[in-house]
Amino acid sequence: MNKVKVSIVGSTGYVGAELVHGFTSHPGIEFMYLTSETFKGKKFSDIYPVFRGVCDKTLVSTEEVSYETIAKDSDLVITALPHGVSSKVVPELIAGGCRVIDHSGDFRYKDLSTYEKSYKLEHPHPELLETAVYGLPELYRDQIKAAKLCANPGCYPTCSILALTPFLKAGLIEKTGIIIDATSGVTGAGRKEKLEYSFCELDESFKPYGVTGHRHSTEINEQLSFMAGDAEGKSVTAAFTPHLAPFKRGMLASIYCRPSALFENVSTDGVRDVLEKHYANEKFVRVLPKGVMPDVKNVNGSNYIDITGVYDEDTGLIKLFSAQDNLGKGAALQAIQTFNVMFGFPEETGLGTLTRGV
Amino acid sequence: MNKVKVSIVGSTGYVGAELVHGFTSHPGIEFMYLTSETFKGKKFSDIYPVFRGVCDKTLVSTEEVSYETIAKDSDLVITALPHGVSSKVVPELIAGGCRVIDHSGDFRYKDLSTYEKSYKLEHPHPELLETAVYGLPELYRDQIKAAKLCANPGCYPTCSILALTPFLKAGLIEKTGIIIDATSGVTGAGRKEKLEYSFCELDESFKPYGVTGHRHSTEINEQLSFMAGDAEGKSVTAAFTPHLAPFKRGMLASIYCRPSALFENVSTDGVRDVLEKHYANEKFVRVLPKGVMPDVKNVNGSNYIDITGVYDEDTGLIKLFSAQDNLGKGAALQAIQTFNVMFGFPEETGLGTLTRGV
Amino acid sequence: MNKVKVSIVGSTGYVGAELVHGFTSHPGIEFMYLTSETFKGKKFSDIYPVFRGVCDKTLVSTEEVSYETIAKDSDLVITALPHGVSSKVVPELIAGGCRVIDHSGDFRYKDLSTYEKSYKLEHPHPELLETAVYGLPELYRDQIKAAKLCANPGCYPTCSILALTPFLKAGLIEKTGIIIDATSGVTGAGRKEKLEYSFCELDESFKPYGVTGHRHSTEINEQLSFMAGDAEGKSVTAAFTPHLAPFKRGMLASIYCRPSALFENVSTDGVRDVLEKHYANEKFVRVLPKGVMPDVKNVNGSNYIDITGVYDEDTGLIKLFSAQDNLGKGAALQAIQTFNVMFGFPEETGLGTLTRGV
Amino acid sequence: MNKVKVSIVGSTGYVGAELVHGFTSHPGIEFMYLTSETFKGKKFSDIYPVFRGVCDKTLVSTEEVSYETIAKDSDLVITALPHGVSSKVVPELIAGGCRVIDHSGDFRYKDLSTYEKSYKLEHPHPELLETAVYGLPELYRDQIKAAKLCANPGCYPTCSILALTPFLKAGLIEKTGIIIDATSGVTGAGRKEKLEYSFCELDESFKPYGVTGHRHSTEINEQLSFMAGDAEGKSVTAAFTPHLAPFKRGMLASIYCRPSALFENVSTDGVRDVLEKHYANEKFVRVLPKGVMPDVKNVNGSNYIDITGVYDEDTGLIKLFSAQDNLGKGAALQAIQTFNVMFGFPEETGLGTLTRGV
Repeated sequence: MNKVKVSIVGSTGYVGAELVHGFTSHPGIEFMYLTSETFKGKKFSDIYPVFRGVCDKTLVSTEEVSYETIAKDSDLVITALPHGVSSKVVPELIAGGCRVIDHSGDFRYKDLSTYEKSYKLEHPHPELLETAVYGLPELYRDQIKAAKLCANPGCYPTCSILALTPFLKAGLIEKTGIIIDATSGVTGAGRKEKLEYSFCELDESFKPYGVTGHRHSTEINEQLSFMAGDAEGKSVTAAFTPHLAPFKRGMLASIYCRPSALFENVSTDGVRDVLEKHYANEKFVRVLPKGVMPDVKNVNGSNYIDITGVYDEDTGLIKLFSAQDNLGKGAALQAIQTFNVMFGFPEETGLGTLTRGV
Repeated sequence: MNKVKVSIVGSTGYVGAELVHGFTSHPGIEFMYLTSETFKGKKFSDIYPVFRGVCDKTLVSTEEVSYETIAKDSDLVITALPHGVSSKVVPELIAGGCRVIDHSGDFRYKDLSTYEKSYKLEHPHPELLETAVYGLPELYRDQIKAAKLCANPGCYPTCSILALTPFLKAGLIEKTGIIIDATSGVTGAGRKEKLEYSFCELDESFKPYGVTGHRHSTEINEQLSFMAGDAEGKSVTAAFTPHLAPFKRGMLASIYCRPSALFENVSTDGVRDVLEKHYANEKFVRVLPKGVMPDVKNVNGSNYIDITGVYDEDTGLIKLFSAQDNLGKGAALQAIQTFNVMFGFPEETGLGTLTRGV
Repeated sequence: MNKVKVSIVGSTGYVGAELVHGFTSHPGIEFMYLTSETFKGKKFSDIYPVFRGVCDKTLVSTEEVSYETIAKDSDLVITALPHGVSSKVVPELIAGGCRVIDHSGDFRYKDLSTYEKSYKLEHPHPELLETAVYGLPELYRDQIKAAKLCANPGCYPTCSILALTPFLKAGLIEKTGIIIDATSGVTGAGRKEKLEYSFCELDESFKPYGVTGHRHSTEINEQLSFMAGDAEGKSVTAAFTPHLAPFKRGMLASIYCRPSALFENVSTDGVRDVLEKHYANEKFVRVLPKGVMPDVKNVNGSNYIDITGVYDEDTGLIKLFSAQDNLGKGAALQAIQTFNVMFGFPEETGLGTLTRGV
Repeated sequence: MNKVKVSIVGSTGYVGAELVHGFTSHPGIEFMYLTSETFKGKKFSDIYPVFRGVCDKTLVSTEEVSYETIAKDSDLVITALPHGVSSKVVPELIAGGCRVIDHSGDFRYKDLSTYEKSYKLEHPHPELLETAVYGLPELYRDQIKAAKLCANPGCYPTCSILALTPFLKAGLIEKTGIIIDATSGVTGAGRKEKLEYSFCELDESFKPYGVTGHRHSTEINEQLSFMAGDAEGKSVTAAFTPHLAPFKRGMLASIYCRPSALFENVSTDGVRDVLEKHYANEKFVRVLPKGVMPDVKNVNGSNYIDITGVYDEDTGLIKLFSAQDNLGKGAALQAIQTFNVMFGFPEETGLGTLTRGV
């Protein structure tokens, strides 16, 4: 069988590197171009010595190899670019004939004004918002199959949406008053030369950030509203607060919500039952046994998301907890899952045994 | 001036060690007895080599030196014992004539049934619950001055109560629906030979625990209710969820609540104004400048608690954030602050310049 | 093709878990038994939730399934047992007809008295020392092919021997005065309920340990002597000093030695040239480009060992540096490499793309 | 008593911040100027929020307040500037009439050519090399008392020199073949916006760096030669290799050397005896009990250096181990000790009880 030709535009950030990592054990692809403007001419393994002997491909700049050529020579291009850049590059790639998975926020919204308000940018190609598919296979598997453009979800949105969807879809929780308190490892901030992300500033630290108006809030709320049956994407307004913790990878969401009148005899068993039934056939969503809590160490390096929930009798709240690797199910490995759906591979191809072990 | 004679019962746990640490720079005390059943006969600095040359006092067991003798020879005894043990030892010490600061949960409650339900123990000396003073100087300074027995608050309660008190006292937030999502460093679990607290299990990990029925819930709620003017201690039922993060010391609480009708023109400035006014004269409560978030690294090693708050227009919620050292303001150093109040020292004696620096 | 039947005796320690991790992506094996005396009846993924959905095999005790049965039903048994236990169990397994890879020190020595002095034990089956093959494929590939019993090397020995072998074999360094200063992550100490390995004791710590008489000294020296052409195994007496550092996995050796008269025009280029030529055909030994230093983060999760060297003109010393994952090339993944040699698989089967990524 | 007027030039690096930290509990000083070119006009506690309420002094630039003014208004100026900058600023300050403690390498050498070769700079004021005193109180206490300019030693040199001095002074070890293998926490690299010091690059990493020609080599060797009685400063050529480990603060040196013929009946007891006798009256050098190894966690936050040694019978080597806080005894707190000597305070003033506790 011919291998699928895959290129990565912006391959030397942490998402790009994890894409390379994930795809190296995928039997169905070959890399066409790995691009980097900063490191063009160097080998990928010069930038990430961990890949020496595993991926020594030479990096090219998009000045040397145009987007047109990349599009022409590739079946799929994965873009790992900043928002505002993707919105210009992606349309060019699609015009060139390839399919695209994009990692920025530029194609994740259906509502243009929500995007423009959240990102404080005018969108140069709003027509693509309609056809782009939100690349969360557990939600949009069928649309992904034929999609020309998939917008890979944000890390916090994936972690939050997968925990809440089974309850919102079934109307079992109230749409208002949802609180999402989430914590990310430092790779979530990207590969940056900034003092605030230096080892000495972050080791033995823990703090909230972006406590109002974080961009992922609106992405989360639009999708949660869709899940709640609101085609306008406005009915759910969860409060979202991210924190930064001293570990490299991993993300945990602790979510607080209220059962609706439809949730009969709500109990911890009942909450877990909803999760287990909803995700019975999902390979990468692991509903944990009663009493076992998600821990980032158990999902890091993999495409798994671990979820559980309890009903707190003292307060009448449902508490949901979900953990994933921010670069795995929260970014690059989810993109590979989406790739598998787009190109007809079994969904776990290249991902099935990928874990970090001890 | 005569020095105050201080003994520590159970001195080799992390709280005991931080008491020794804090008191070594206090000009007004001398240690009488440091007790340890496990390490009797050894020097304190054999157990904690960091103290070599700073505190080399020999540890005694309470079989060698009876509680009666300890009480007789000491002006103050600080007990750092497990709950259920303190409730038996403390009355004996008080009967012996000394004053006591206790670190367990045994004397923190006013309502006996709440204690007995939370700790699943019958209290052998319920009469002391009435006279014991909750050792949070910012709340009970006057009662502490004359107290025979102070119950040093739990770490999570201190962190939560100090953030919420200004709002509850003024009736500015609703008493229901408060959510406290908190994270602690590993010293919070004590000095234990357990696999779950081993380096290999906790490095690069992050998880919730005790997600329903954690003992600190009831302690928090009783005090919050008092602050809200409810002498029964029942009206506030905040939902509390702790998490364990890979750092040694430090604790952060992220708190979500709703402004009441009394909070006019609620805004971030308004929220911060409430905090700043309430704590204007408190040395150890630092209300952070607008835009600066609490971070455990900035309070570790000190008796400070850093607090801030925002009003989130999108959801109508007030979000409060507070950080302290779980062994500092959350335990041992708060006990020294309380000691200063009890024995008439300026409140910052021995604590004023105590920070960890970079 | 029939899959090779593999059992792991002592599967729930960190080495056992990494064996399971490595073998899950190996196409040529199936697990017969995973044994655990402590956790029998539980699933492997109950002990290590990271493996949920990846390896849920039920653990059996060797009381339920005898060594005889295990040996009969398996083509290969890998033992991850303490020294002194392996020496009793392994002969029984071999008598039962299977081949064995053992992880203890019990079969690593050729000289009985060196073993007995190092481990302070009498060896119950000294006859096996002769036929056991030291399971370092880069040194003993041919003997491993037909070996009934392979003794998987210690982690420090692998890291030290692979760096020094090219020089000792060619007589390019002096056999005396070699100094090996090495540092290990905490998994090297095993999965233990000990205070000294607790997070609070090891986070932000760094210290030497076992600074004289560490068992790996004699293992290193016997093999280095063999490499130097001394069949008695006594001529090299390198000084070895281990340190413990606050990371989970990874090991680095910094090695100091003197060029011999045979090393003409010694220089950094010359030192690197020796390494590159010697390891030109070795898949898992990566000789790093000039100026790039080994770092544990680049080998963790993989079977790679990264090596480089410099000549220090100021002192006339050669400095060699090697890094590996203590559980990877230092233990479990090296055992899988050895397994591939024993059973005729291409050496990188299941290991070729195994890295940790970012 | 009048307080000593102290200014810090370059106060917002990690050394500057630790100077502020240390001096805040010193009863005999007041800060005149804290300078920062980058952060002028801000409060010190804006840059380091840990100091809020402890040191809120406003930072000034040396454009606003000239070196002449700083010198005139201060009894002591401490410079924490890069090498090459100090060599120009310090002479100006001294000309202005104040005394100076400098943290760069610019005044640490007696031999001009060694400095110029090591730092690849021409020295603008070589005449000061003669009168500058190497600010290591345990070696040069008497000269420090009257010194106009003290050159605070490098961190690696302090850690290495204090371990070896007792042996070299007594002629008990050979002057050749000494090997110093040392490891530092990340604050040693300074407060820098560089990718290589980012959390994601350093967490779970460990590597050597500067493996030949590190500047501290020549500083170490000049001082060790002086200790060995060689006024030329050339006879000792220890090999020095630094490593970078994932903790913020702390430094450990593992040192290998050979006993000379003068060391009769060399043994571990004998080695420790030399250390104990030499340092019997030194407050900040703690010779550890037999069997206890130095650990950075036990010295961090303090001015202590912990030292021990063993004799390794198998190899005939003496192994010495020393640990200190790289910012403490390795930099800022040692400067305060030196300050105490210069200005006639008891040497432990402000430092005696300074430790990090648990």
